Amino acid sequence: MSTQTITPLNSQTIRNAVQLALAEDLACGDVTTSALFPRNIPAEAAIVAHQPMTLAGIAVAREVFLAVDPSLRITKTVKDGTTVKPDTKVLVVRGDVRSLLMAERVAVNFLQQLSGIATLTAQFCAAVRGYSTRILDTRKTTPGLRALEKWAVQLGGGKNHRFSLGDGVLIKDNHLAVLRSTGVDVAGACRLARANAPHGLRIEVEAKTLQEVKEALAGKADIILLDNMSPALVRQAVALIKQRALVEVSGGTTLQTVAAMAQAGADYISVGALTHSAPAANLSMDLSAQRGRRGPAR
Amino acid sequence: MSTQTITPLNSQTIRNAVQLALAEDLACGDVTTSALFPRNIPAEAAIVAHQPMTLAGIAVAREVFLAVDPSLRITKTVKDGTTVKPDTKVLVVRGDVRSLLMAERVAVNFLQQLSGIATLTAQFCAAVRGYSTRILDTRKTTPGLRALEKWAVQLGGGKNHRFSLGDGVLIKDNHLAVLRSTGVDVAGACRLARANAPHGLRIEVEAKTLQEVKEALAGKADIILLDNMSPALVRQAVALIKQRALVEVSGGTTLQTVAAMAQAGADYISVGALTHSAPAANLSMDLSAQRGRRGPAR
Amino acid sequence: MSTQTITPLNSQTIRNAVQLALAEDLACGDVTTSALFPRNIPAEAAIVAHQPMTLAGIAVAREVFLAVDPSLRITKTVKDGTTVKPDTKVLVVRGDVRSLLMAERVAVNFLQQLSGIATLTAQFCAAVRGYSTRILDTRKTTPGLRALEKWAVQLGGGKNHRFSLGDGVLIKDNHLAVLRSTGVDVAGACRLARANAPHGLRIEVEAKTLQEVKEALAGKADIILLDNMSPALVRQAVALIKQRALVEVSGGTTLQTVAAMAQAGADYISVGALTHSAPAANLSMDLSAQRGRRGPAR
Amino acid sequence: MSTQTITPLNSQTIRNAVQLALAEDLACGDVTTSALFPRNIPAEAAIVAHQPMTLAGIAVAREVFLAVDPSLRITKTVKDGTTVKPDTKVLVVRGDVRSLLMAERVAVNFLQQLSGIATLTAQFCAAVRGYSTRILDTRKTTPGLRALEKWAVQLGGGKNHRFSLGDGVLIKDNHLAVLRSTGVDVAGACRLARANAPHGLRIEVEAKTLQEVKEALAGKADIILLDNMSPALVRQAVALIKQRALVEVSGGTTLQTVAAMAQAGADYISVGALTHSAPAANLSMDLSAQRGRRGPAR
Amino acid sequence: MSTQTITPLNSQTIRNAVQLALAEDLACGDVTTSALFPRNIPAEAAIVAHQPMTLAGIAVAREVFLAVDPSLRITKTVKDGTTVKPDTKVLVVRGDVRSLLMAERVAVNFLQQLSGIATLTAQFCAAVRGYSTRILDTRKTTPGLRALEKWAVQLGGGKNHRFSLGDGVLIKDNHLAVLRSTGVDVAGACRLARANAPHGLRIEVEAKTLQEVKEALAGKADIILLDNMSPALVRQAVALIKQRALVEVSGGTTLQTVAAMAQAGADYISVGALTHSAPAANLSMDLSAQRGRRGPAR
Amino acid sequence: MSTQTITPLNSQTIRNAVQLALAEDLACGDVTTSALFPRNIPAEAAIVAHQPMTLAGIAVAREVFLAVDPSLRITKTVKDGTTVKPDTKVLVVRGDVRSLLMAERVAVNFLQQLSGIATLTAQFCAAVRGYSTRILDTRKTTPGLRALEKWAVQLGGGKNHRFSLGDGVLIKDNHLAVLRSTGVDVAGACRLARANAPHGLRIEVEAKTLQEVKEALAGKADIILLDNMSPALVRQAVALIKQRALVEVSGGTTLQTVAAMAQAGADYISVGALTHSAPAANLSMDLSAQRGRRGPAR
Repeated sequence: MSTQTITPLNSQTIRNAVQLALAEDLACGDVTTSALFPRNIPAEAAIVAHQPMTLAGIAVAREVFLAVDPSLRITKTVKDGTTVKPDTKVLVVRGDVRSLLMAERVAVNFLQQLSGIATLTAQFCAAVRGYSTRILDTRKTTPGLRALEKWAVQLGGGKNHRFSLGDGVLIKDNHLAVLRSTGVDVAGACRLARANAPHGLRIEVEAKTLQEVKEALAGKADIILLDNMSPALVRQAVALIKQRALVEVSGGTTLQTVAAMAQAGADYISVGALTHSAPAANLSMDLSAQRGRRGPAR
Repeated sequence: MSTQTITPLNSQTIRNAVQLALAEDLACGDVTTSALFPRNIPAEAAIVAHQPMTLAGIAVAREVFLAVDPSLRITKTVKDGTTVKPDTKVLVVRGDVRSLLMAERVAVNFLQQLSGIATLTAQFCAAVRGYSTRILDTRKTTPGLRALEKWAVQLGGGKNHRFSLGDGVLIKDNHLAVLRSTGVDVAGACRLARANAPHGLRIEVEAKTLQEVKEALAGKADIILLDNMSPALVRQAVALIKQRALVEVSGGTTLQTVAAMAQAGADYISVGALTHSAPAANLSMDLSAQRGRRGPAR
Repeated sequence: MSTQTITPLNSQTIRNAVQLALAEDLACGDVTTSALFPRNIPAEAAIVAHQPMTLAGIAVAREVFLAVDPSLRITKTVKDGTTVKPDTKVLVVRGDVRSLLMAERVAVNFLQQLSGIATLTAQFCAAVRGYSTRILDTRKTTPGLRALEKWAVQLGGGKNHRFSLGDGVLIKDNHLAVLRSTGVDVAGACRLARANAPHGLRIEVEAKTLQEVKEALAGKADIILLDNMSPALVRQAVALIKQRALVEVSGGTTLQTVAAMAQAGADYISVGALTHSAPAANLSMDLSAQRGRRGPAR
Repeated sequence: MSTQTITPLNSQTIRNAVQLALAEDLACGDVTTSALFPRNIPAEAAIVAHQPMTLAGIAVAREVFLAVDPSLRITKTVKDGTTVKPDTKVLVVRGDVRSLLMAERVAVNFLQQLSGIATLTAQFCAAVRGYSTRILDTRKTTPGLRALEKWAVQLGGGKNHRFSLGDGVLIKDNHLAVLRSTGVDVAGACRLARANAPHGLRIEVEAKTLQEVKEALAGKADIILLDNMSPALVRQAVALIKQRALVEVSGGTTLQTVAAMAQAGADYISVGALTHSAPAANLSMDLSAQRGRRGPAR
Repeated sequence: MSTQTITPLNSQTIRNAVQLALAEDLACGDVTTSALFPRNIPAEAAIVAHQPMTLAGIAVAREVFLAVDPSLRITKTVKDGTTVKPDTKVLVVRGDVRSLLMAERVAVNFLQQLSGIATLTAQFCAAVRGYSTRILDTRKTTPGLRALEKWAVQLGGGKNHRFSLGDGVLIKDNHLAVLRSTGVDVAGACRLARANAPHGLRIEVEAKTLQEVKEALAGKADIILLDNMSPALVRQAVALIKQRALVEVSGGTTLQTVAAMAQAGADYISVGALTHSAPAANLSMDLSAQRGRRGPAR
Repeated sequence: MSTQTITPLNSQTIRNAVQLALAEDLACGDVTTSALFPRNIPAEAAIVAHQPMTLAGIAVAREVFLAVDPSLRITKTVKDGTTVKPDTKVLVVRGDVRSLLMAERVAVNFLQQLSGIATLTAQFCAAVRGYSTRILDTRKTTPGLRALEKWAVQLGGGKNHRFSLGDGVLIKDNHLAVLRSTGVDVAGACRLARANAPHGLRIEVEAKTLQEVKEALAGKADIILLDNMSPALVRQAVALIKQRALVEVSGGTTLQTVAAMAQAGADYISVGALTHSAPAANLSMDLSAQRGRRGPAR
């Protein structure tokens, strides 16, 4: 990701997620660490990436360490959004060994989840390089982590679709199924939405067939979501639409099939797997005592 | 999963997770649904599984629907922990079309995440069938969802390792690295933990080599975690331990390698991927108007 | 308001607002009521409107009474959105006199604030009757009550503008002031927004002069916000725009001037005063003992 | 306001209100700002008062800016409680243009609401200058903002009546209506309250007629609230009371009638409109790029 | 406690306290119960008092059981405020054995703490029977449980002093120490408070000597708090005060000395020990399987 | 307490408890302090111990002062866990007199409660000095304060038993009563727990008779809890157990009887009174104006 605009995350969002995660792990303290380290031993912890990855979550991991112990010192951070090689130290923190151990798992959990998403997104983006097609996420996110996951998608070079049901109009098959039973077709649905929805929003509608694409055009939809079509059918739909609406493709697109969809003329390809099925990125924390380091008075 | 004991989830835990997720999706209402459905249309929503899966999250999805609209009626539920075939309706709900549409994504998000975990866990359990080995999860969980994810592991037939740093002693490589710099070896670490840790907890320690296994035995560890060893090396370690301690195997075990680890004599195999890399299970919601259905006055 | 679509408020939003308000008023109990009524006396409370008004907040007031005491019985409710005459009983509740007294102020506070907004909105809507112009609210809402206040605007017949900075693109004078210092004009700002903003959102831009209107058209803005223009200037802008963009008028519009703006051709008129300066509607609660009524054992 | 004692607001109260308001506006980020400003541009924001006003909320607005971005620098603040002329810059903040834009509306919303209350209060206080009468607020406050609104009343020179039902005894018409049905009159109500209420609280009782004033005196009320009486009737009541109780006047008092009430001898005049119907004060934020300003390293 | 007025506790206060306590005990489930009871066994739990006590907390314990499992049925409850003999079953609950076991400790913890307070309060009240003196609590309460503890004091027959620093004026030695350094004496302090404090509050001031009592009278204090005086000195102070102010006695009063203080003429005796040092009341839960009971289908 | 390992308390736990307590006391401000001190007077507050005690809660009291006013300066702190003589200043804070007064009660309330627990624990520990027996707490803690109270037990030299139902297996009489009705005896219960409980936990079981001790041994329990046995019976049980299990003694142990239990051979003695019935430690705050002290610019 290079010139991409990254929405700055609300810092309260990060803090809330971090507090929730720390509460899960530290509600009853850390019995192992307390038993082994009755006194502070100055130590250095390095979080290391073990595979090539696009980093996401460094800002969150920082917050984890500082929330556990504000006296810890961050001595190195690689910026979120950077693509790193294996064996890169992406975050280095110094201070009381006990605090470092208590923060370890929560910090790494955020990083592996978010970097996993950013890395998979970057792979999808790379697969459509050369086309003007943009990769979109969906609302198929982990409950409670949507803002963080959508930020990871941005860091991987993707573009965010709706954050919630309140910031975009998307008429889907379930809306259409019920409307049809009341005698309203796709075109009618588009007109109804245009009349009643907030004036700042475009109207996007799902189409499963070329017939529905025609109805969507008749209803003056701004964006047509082609659902589960083959690249060949997408190409026909794009030809039919003739730039009278933007074209989004959705449904089962993989790293293998995404280029064909881009070539078929999609403006946007939305991929649920970016957030619901990205494998965790492989990172871990290495700890070492800081011999000869003087105490906090230094 | 058949005779497995399932820890009942605290109902407040479910409610909190559901409220957090609904807040993400519905903070500003549902502009599409509001624009299309000015009035209640009675409808029926069926959540359908599209692949073979072990269900987890039905109790959560129920709560989602009822939190959106307490007047919705759940007319069918398949029990959490059931293994279902493709095209099974796992949850059927009736009521105001708007409420069903507003609950859809959040309900499905919980189900796809948790059933994904239960299904992958069930596959690992099946792979070690015939051995006394148990599959364990780890603390590599999604931040904020640990309790739900560990419940999904149980539903898949797995056993839970620690819920937090407070309910189990596990001396890991990072503890040992720092202790070594102060002249304490694996055996010394075990003795330190035994002296200081809560008396109700066993002492578990990580060993990377047969030498460390010997030290762990010298320190009278109750459980030895063999980290990243090959099945052959695990077999040697098991022979060395001679049932003086329980044996847990960890590190990169896959569906392909898990049986070999069981055969090598592991009592427990812990698998981080159960929670951090399970692909989402494939479910979706189908909606239909309920023609001729009379209103709430009936 | 007659055929208007009302976004159903998230019931959790209502509950949260009610709990916050009750916590303010009842944190230390009700010393007066406790001193005067050692025992339950069955009573009836009627909330009465003292002026013509469009009701908003009945659903919230209900929740207040039931949150204070789930055993209270609501025996009459006028629907939110109804326009009532003076001396109308809009909500009647029966039960323990102490619960009714403890709920009184919080229930009335919600009703007076929200009905004030709905009533003022209805007056603005009435003033533009006959034109296709719609009245919009703004984000100039009371901190913490935005969702409720925007719902009141709907009940009064108005249409909601953005709920937050995340559900609509609106390039305002402050954005333009800084962009200009980097050599970007109104047209450039529109293009930048189009390239980077979520694809489901239209681009709206503020224009203070006819020159800026021309730039906005050059930038292919979807909506042009005419800021603080006279009706005469609005008319010129509308002529210039020739339906190539929607026209929103904003800035100091009053009940006296709003019809002139509608006549000048505005599609939308946004009015901050709807939420920040609506006078409270005049309602109060009347209480009477229910003589001869038998107790809960009946 | 000059020598008035201002209760310092609990800083947690401010923080909670600010977080709630920011959550409303920034839950999904700021799509406009993110699209227009991919990189930090150093800028200066000045909040400007556009009318004469008594300021309230500067401390809250500061908190808003710092909560959005702790690296912002406040370079000018006018103190809360100050009366300013039009075109006064009341708060100046420097830093990342994106943070300033994201904080703008929430900061101004607090200021316009609270300064509106302080300004209206100051006008009521000015209207009774020369009398010993004090202007009081009521519990008719905006749900969720009571502490902030009562602080604004103080800043405008008013005195606070009860914060909640737990910090003052006030026997109102509704209490009396029910007590009467059990044979207890105003005097009896006062005696009941005296016997049962916390010993640190005075007994205040509402009287609508001279007869009820006599009963209140018989019951040894400490404070008599004259409800909805004309100035002439208040004068008679004051003469009747002969300083045996404090006199509070309530009900529909306006800027036009308040002096007559003071002249009639009221010790206190409580005015619900201070908090429920104060028009928003007119303030806005002006933004400009800081050309040539060097970055954070300076 | 017989004819005492009990302030009804806000039900949200109870719910919040219960949720906090359940979160402490059940955050990671109940490993023992889950291991032993894979399936529901219908059981009956009886909470039994093992000593004479005044009950407080039954309403809270009920809420605990129902929060853990809404399907539990409460089959017997003794009312809060009742004085019971040893071996009384004060609460009987039926349902799933697992839910009963998970609720046990939290329910009993509330009951032992609150009944301990009510019982000690009742002992103090009994010790002053025959005098008009009332026993008061203080703000020396357990952090987070003030509302519940003050309710327990009421149930024991005591009267509540201030709930917070906002609902009563009490000028204490620390206020006076600092005021004295600015040349203000006890009388001056009283006048200052009268001028500036909310008009609905009486002025209470602490006096350590007869000289300070005289100053308090000169300052027209409404209530004089005699701090750490002997009964003999209290008697002199009471004689000096001659009913021009109410008399509260505070400081180290015990069950042995309280009658002497009452006899010396105190109107109120405040006792910190009621809430900070009441020994826990002795209650426990007995569980038995309900043989032959049919399941929920009945 | 000297070489004891103290689990560091999660700082968020402290902050949450402090905010809850401050919310109770300061929700409506401090009417006395506001009335008496319109302006800042620099002052010094010293919290003084009035009896010999083991301190617990200094870290919490610090947080209270800084939460009320971050500009206060802590000038002296005695470390938590220190045993102090009467009249020791354990915490000295300087700053605005109003902030010191507003923090006083909450700070002292935490200190008196937690130091009471630490002091009682230290007395129990002293009573078993010379034996290897360790003093344990129980889950009989104040609802909402468990983490703080268990930390106080550590500071007094005690060892913590379970923090929650999730971090230890303890089969108690109620479990056994129900199991017995299904034909499972103590040995069977132990085996069931071993099979199903988390593998990192030891199995502890309650025994009321020597027969039950034998069954527990048969079930290979790791720890046997001797409930309500006399020292003589404990001695017989210890002889029977012959170190095949750890021995915990519980039930009514007092400072008078604890040594006999240690002498009888108990490894652990758990004492509910440590947390549920420790009398408050006697501390208070002394305040004095700082004459001649210069303002914050110094």
